[in-house]
Amino acid sequence: VPKISEERKTERREQILAGARRCFAQNGYEGATVARLETEIGLSRGAIFNYFGSKEDLFVALAVQDSARMSETFVEHGLEGVVREIVELDPDWLSVYLELFRRVRTDESFHRKIEDSQRAGAAVERNRARIEEGQRTGELRSDLEPKQIGAFLNLVLNGLALARAGGEEPPEVELVLDLLGDAIGGGARRDTRPRTPA
Amino acid sequence: VPKISEERKTERREQILAGARRCFAQNGYEGATVARLETEIGLSRGAIFNYFGSKEDLFVALAVQDSARMSETFVEHGLEGVVREIVELDPDWLSVYLELFRRVRTDESFHRKIEDSQRAGAAVERNRARIEEGQRTGELRSDLEPKQIGAFLNLVLNGLALARAGGEEPPEVELVLDLLGDAIGGGARRDTRPRTPA
Repeated sequence: VPKISEERKTERREQILAGARRCFAQNGYEGATVARLETEIGLSRGAIFNYFGSKEDLFVALAVQDSARMSETFVEHGLEGVVREIVELDPDWLSVYLELFRRVRTDESFHRKIEDSQRAGAAVERNRARIEEGQRTGELRSDLEPKQIGAFLNLVLNGLALARAGGEEPPEVELVLDLLGDAIGGGARRDTRPRTPA
Repeated sequence: VPKISEERKTERREQILAGARRCFAQNGYEGATVARLETEIGLSRGAIFNYFGSKEDLFVALAVQDSARMSETFVEHGLEGVVREIVELDPDWLSVYLELFRRVRTDESFHRKIEDSQRAGAAVERNRARIEEGQRTGELRSDLEPKQIGAFLNLVLNGLALARAGGEEPPEVELVLDLLGDAIGGGARRDTRPRTPA
């Protein structure tokens, strides 16, 4: 029996993730039965779970893909890039996250699995480095810790994602960018009062 | 048969809503079966659905209660009040909202029911009036439309609620208040460039 090449394995992994993403978005996480995953992915359960141990693992891998892509956008295009990207996300897919929020909070092993995978993806470090770069170039205010800037940015991005998931019209991107800029941009709080980091 | 007094009716309505809130929080919306609602509320399904037509109506009434309370806090205690209130909300109850987000977006009649009830509650008008007052007193910036200020505030509050629902440590309240102040507070954007409302 010829071995499957690495390239073929990567392709298959991508095929599985893309199909699982569509299937979760269409049916919700609970509604994405193994039978539906098989149909949407076009592979048997044996083949699918050979690559990803469980449905949970499939979701975690997709969440890591998302963080990686969002981080790439932030690194390359800054605040404006991520804000524009988030208001274009698929509401059906965002709803899958919402469906799993309770589980993240109440299921310790699921929580740890997500945290470990996110850590392995290193998006947090890349985002932090990008914030520091923004502070050096004057794009972002430099009187706060990068962590504080990231935390506030996250609030706003999560608020946008939530509006999008609920089918609401999110506020205008230009407005969000202006006010985000006033809060964490390089021109914010030009006074010289020292700010004690939390 | 003696009629139930209005006062007794109001009491009973409150009893039903409080029990339903606990039941939804403990079991999730889907998990809150009619049998569980009966146990938690302490009334028969006949009595419960005599006051609220359906489980959906129970949730809608609770959501209206929430908006009314949040609006009251905003009117009385401004930005600081709502930010402090939101980070103290019960994560179990917040998760019920997340569970229903997909339905709000995909079920037109449910969406309309929520919108109509919120409108009847008039929280939006009270919030708007409070923003205008804040603009007059200098607490909030006056170079934006009240609607724009409200939209940005909503993003941040929703982001906080989401962090809370997921069991994350939300950013420090003081930091959020400082940056919110820089974005929409009276001292924001002190320059005199005119800003065209969207």
